[in-house]
Amino acid sequence: MEVTPNHTQTVTGWAAMDESGKITPFVFKRRENGVDDVTIKVQYCGMCHTDLHFIHNDWGITMYPVVPGHEITGVVTKVGTNVAGFKVGDRVGVGCIAASCLDCEHCRRSEENYCDKVALTYNGIFWDGSVTYGGYSSMLVAHKRFVVRVPDTLPLDAAAPLLCAGITVYSPMKQHGMLQAAGSRLGVVGLGGLGHVAVKFGKAFGLNVTVISTSPAKEREARESLKADNFVVSTDQKQMQAMTRSLDYIIDTVAATHSLGPILELLKVNGKLVLVGAPEKPVELPSFPLIFGKRTVSGSMTGGMKETQEMMDVCGEHNITCDIELVSTDRINEALARLARNDVRYRFVISVGGDSKL
Amino acid sequence: MEVTPNHTQTVTGWAAMDESGKITPFVFKRRENGVDDVTIKVQYCGMCHTDLHFIHNDWGITMYPVVPGHEITGVVTKVGTNVAGFKVGDRVGVGCIAASCLDCEHCRRSEENYCDKVALTYNGIFWDGSVTYGGYSSMLVAHKRFVVRVPDTLPLDAAAPLLCAGITVYSPMKQHGMLQAAGSRLGVVGLGGLGHVAVKFGKAFGLNVTVISTSPAKEREARESLKADNFVVSTDQKQMQAMTRSLDYIIDTVAATHSLGPILELLKVNGKLVLVGAPEKPVELPSFPLIFGKRTVSGSMTGGMKETQEMMDVCGEHNITCDIELVSTDRINEALARLARNDVRYRFVISVGGDSKL
Repeated sequence: MEVTPNHTQTVTGWAAMDESGKITPFVFKRRENGVDDVTIKVQYCGMCHTDLHFIHNDWGITMYPVVPGHEITGVVTKVGTNVAGFKVGDRVGVGCIAASCLDCEHCRRSEENYCDKVALTYNGIFWDGSVTYGGYSSMLVAHKRFVVRVPDTLPLDAAAPLLCAGITVYSPMKQHGMLQAAGSRLGVVGLGGLGHVAVKFGKAFGLNVTVISTSPAKEREARESLKADNFVVSTDQKQMQAMTRSLDYIIDTVAATHSLGPILELLKVNGKLVLVGAPEKPVELPSFPLIFGKRTVSGSMTGGMKETQEMMDVCGEHNITCDIELVSTDRINEALARLARNDVRYRFVISVGGDSKL
Repeated sequence: MEVTPNHTQTVTGWAAMDESGKITPFVFKRRENGVDDVTIKVQYCGMCHTDLHFIHNDWGITMYPVVPGHEITGVVTKVGTNVAGFKVGDRVGVGCIAASCLDCEHCRRSEENYCDKVALTYNGIFWDGSVTYGGYSSMLVAHKRFVVRVPDTLPLDAAAPLLCAGITVYSPMKQHGMLQAAGSRLGVVGLGGLGHVAVKFGKAFGLNVTVISTSPAKEREARESLKADNFVVSTDQKQMQAMTRSLDYIIDTVAATHSLGPILELLKVNGKLVLVGAPEKPVELPSFPLIFGKRTVSGSMTGGMKETQEMMDVCGEHNITCDIELVSTDRINEALARLARNDVRYRFVISVGGDSKL
């Protein structure tokens, strides 16, 4: 752990100390609030599936102790002298990014998420060389560029997962034109943290939404609560065949390794599939459905800061939040265990300093 | 073999009679020239890798005897009373398509190649229920919609493979904007029948072209004869790493099963890869390079008729043809054997009724 001289603020957090992934209370230091910084009292932090990968070192890049969390909402308690956009008391959020170079073509386009030098909100290396610690903690110091405003109409707990799950589906939906395609047919593969928000965005923008899931048990909720127009069990070949060449777009949120073949067949000619889940092993891509249907498979990873603010504002207008289960800080391990078996509807949010009753 | 009453014209061709794939002379019937038809004396027919798949029944859909060939050039000998666009003596070509419904959204957009009812030039089922026979034959009757003009400046032998190899790379290059992207950087994976034409189109439209190949031996020809700007040996990790995030587009023409991972890494953020080879087994698509670079993998299959004519005209303007090896009809089997081991630069063309000396 590298400590720079201005890292003087003592913070209580929750960290995994080794590959066991067990989360325990952890006291560490954060930097002083710099001239461009915003200090945030963390109220809520969503639990993303990525947190599991980092605490268990699944990708071999974890720097322990790791304080996870990149779906953070809270209230501003201090702003630097160069900060014009935020003031004490503002309701704000921080997502996946702690820093980027601010100078490359991607940063200039506010695609900070694709900057070569991007530093993630946790397990990243900040400008000063220190390892970043995430939102499973009581307080955060963030550079103003990477802070967004949370509309007053949105509760801070249910808004927290928008900072990752929300922007991860919003960004490709916008960039592939889905938000200007009312009446088009969207398939959402996987009904979890990402998928359920994709359904909400789809309905808010007038798309006809089909949920594609391995779990028949999710049909009722998909239709009744999330207002999906259609539900297909992906293991039911008859249902899948009946949907051949019927969808304009698909958002595939499944992080388990799977073949894209049967899913691609659901797309019309020229249809577009966006992969936002990140299966660890390569997915199978049969060339025939891709070629015979002139279809497209794209990837997308979170979003840039301008787009994240825009997404937040859109959620404010359309009253879109995540469906969450609140957990207290002493039940993080229990929640992580349930998250590992996808037993959550649809996102756990830790009440770090929030006042919601658990 | 289904014969309809108007199939009265006797034609000499060359067919595979069974899965051995051995090509032998074969006499069969074609339909009378109908009011919308054009009769063509076949002069040249290119040998596409797809021919190998059909003669050996690799895909389990071959109807024997199969007369292959969908890269056909020749001269018009008869036109129907409804045919305004062609006259006797015209130099014309026929590609992969014998028929489509002419009425669906794809046909209306001249994307006949994606019509649900498309009938291929060989091993297809024509409107009258007959099995289609391809260009390894002395004469062809084709519906006017599926005939294109060959510009006078192009030799009929070296132009023949444009009808499949040419349009297969031209169509996605046009549709993904590469032909309006002078100065952009294009990678061409695989330097064969398709790849070498992609290089030529790339150079004609002002792109900076890098050939990516497993064969270091192809470098000299790629640079000197095809005017490629750069050459990378795909098995050389150092060369590949030096190219990370450097290309705007990639045309992947490789039909062998391969991982897209190392190739995707060569693309810039937002870069686009088009798969035009058709590996029989699924290709490996690692999600990380796709997602972390917001990259896109698209498929594309030949092209529509309007686009095929446009491609021919572009080739006429830019003097683009295929580099071919001419073979006589008694050496088709020998050429197929060499084709099976990719021993051809870059396309075999059968001199069916042409007058070129072999």
